[in-house]
Amino acid sequence: MNIILFEKDELKSGCVVLTDHRAKHIVKVLHSELGDCIRVGEINGEIGTATVLSIKNKYPFLVELSVSLSAKPAPSPSIDLILAMPRPIMLKRILSQLTALGIGTIYIINANRVEKSFWDAGILNEDEYRPHLIHGLEQAVDTRLPEIKIFRHFLPFVEEYLPELSIQYSSCIIAHPDSGKSLSDCVAENDEGILYAVGPEGGWVDFEIKKFLTAGMNDFSIGPRILKVDTAAVSIHGRISQLLG
Amino acid sequence: MNIILFEKDELKSGCVVLTDHRAKHIVKVLHSELGDCIRVGEINGEIGTATVLSIKNKYPFLVELSVSLSAKPAPSPSIDLILAMPRPIMLKRILSQLTALGIGTIYIINANRVEKSFWDAGILNEDEYRPHLIHGLEQAVDTRLPEIKIFRHFLPFVEEYLPELSIQYSSCIIAHPDSGKSLSDCVAENDEGILYAVGPEGGWVDFEIKKFLTAGMNDFSIGPRILKVDTAAVSIHGRISQLLG
Repeated sequence: MNIILFEKDELKSGCVVLTDHRAKHIVKVLHSELGDCIRVGEINGEIGTATVLSIKNKYPFLVELSVSLSAKPAPSPSIDLILAMPRPIMLKRILSQLTALGIGTIYIINANRVEKSFWDAGILNEDEYRPHLIHGLEQAVDTRLPEIKIFRHFLPFVEEYLPELSIQYSSCIIAHPDSGKSLSDCVAENDEGILYAVGPEGGWVDFEIKKFLTAGMNDFSIGPRILKVDTAAVSIHGRISQLLG
Repeated sequence: MNIILFEKDELKSGCVVLTDHRAKHIVKVLHSELGDCIRVGEINGEIGTATVLSIKNKYPFLVELSVSLSAKPAPSPSIDLILAMPRPIMLKRILSQLTALGIGTIYIINANRVEKSFWDAGILNEDEYRPHLIHGLEQAVDTRLPEIKIFRHFLPFVEEYLPELSIQYSSCIIAHPDSGKSLSDCVAENDEGILYAVGPEGGWVDFEIKKFLTAGMNDFSIGPRILKVDTAAVSIHGRISQLLG
């Protein structure tokens, strides 16, 4: 946890009172004392510092902070992701890793090779996925919560939603090992927004690729190596970030 | 498992007999039958196909394969990694993810902010880490096992070993948030070998950075976001791969 984040409605008259894992972190990891200054941020708001006004360093922990917000977080790459619903345990890691790397919106969609049981997972509830996003923000010292949009049916997403969505990006690209194009054919320095798509274990089926191309996306390949979804999502994010410069 | 791998000494008169998780995979996931052809490879050898000569599809599983090796695996990026010993559970994932992405050698070293207890982990024994490397090869359809070299002391590595090692690479680079250089200042298209270094949670200390620079490495930054070790290792591998083209 490289920044202590709080919700807007936790800030009252310039103060925040913490009694949960954040208080424990301030006591046990930061070893903060009365009067110490720590880095804080308001979720979807500014970053700043806070002074420890009072502290109870035994269980149940309590920390009262006087907050001074001063700056927007560092800019984030303009990258969004379409992700075929992965195994739920993997989704948790992907959400926090991509939030740490910087991502605007993650569209979680269905695909032919997504196991139906994945859709029953609790992680698709906001109450369950939000902590993983906040974990990524706390890691990367950011406050901007990514948006998560869930589409349980492939065709309405790709036929109705995606064509209008895709025109908002400089480039919309889909990872597909059979493609003859490389990533640098599709993404240029100073592109303003990139939407990339990563398929399920086993890949997209041909029908899905065709639908994505019809909806305005470009296919690309990063080579013949077959990657797990989490490895591909993070590695391709790195490649795109490098190309954007 | 996108390829069935076997050790050189398992191949006898052109045949391999499998009785472990690989036999189970062939029966339960591939649903192979007598006469079917599957993709196989010899660890540190060639890739090819195998025909199912006999199969016992109930526990204990047994599959006998007639093997025909024919080609080298697809080329791998010429990238090696210096990794400050991470939390053991994270190391397992890093090993299989980087093996899947393609890596030559991973130098696991000590650093000031490495927790001492990490060095007691069983994962540092070859018997324990090798399966995670093979898991990465099975994922990526590769046969080339990365080399793992372990240095339990920082100074002998950086003062005695690294200066001679570093001259074998086109570029040796160390991720450091305070650097004023970007990755593209350090890596050029068609570079022949890249050695990159990723520090522990909390980063390298100044003394370590100085030692790395003295030993012939260049520092670079990918921006102010603080990443976990696994995210950084995979994302930077992606960035370097993209620059190498």
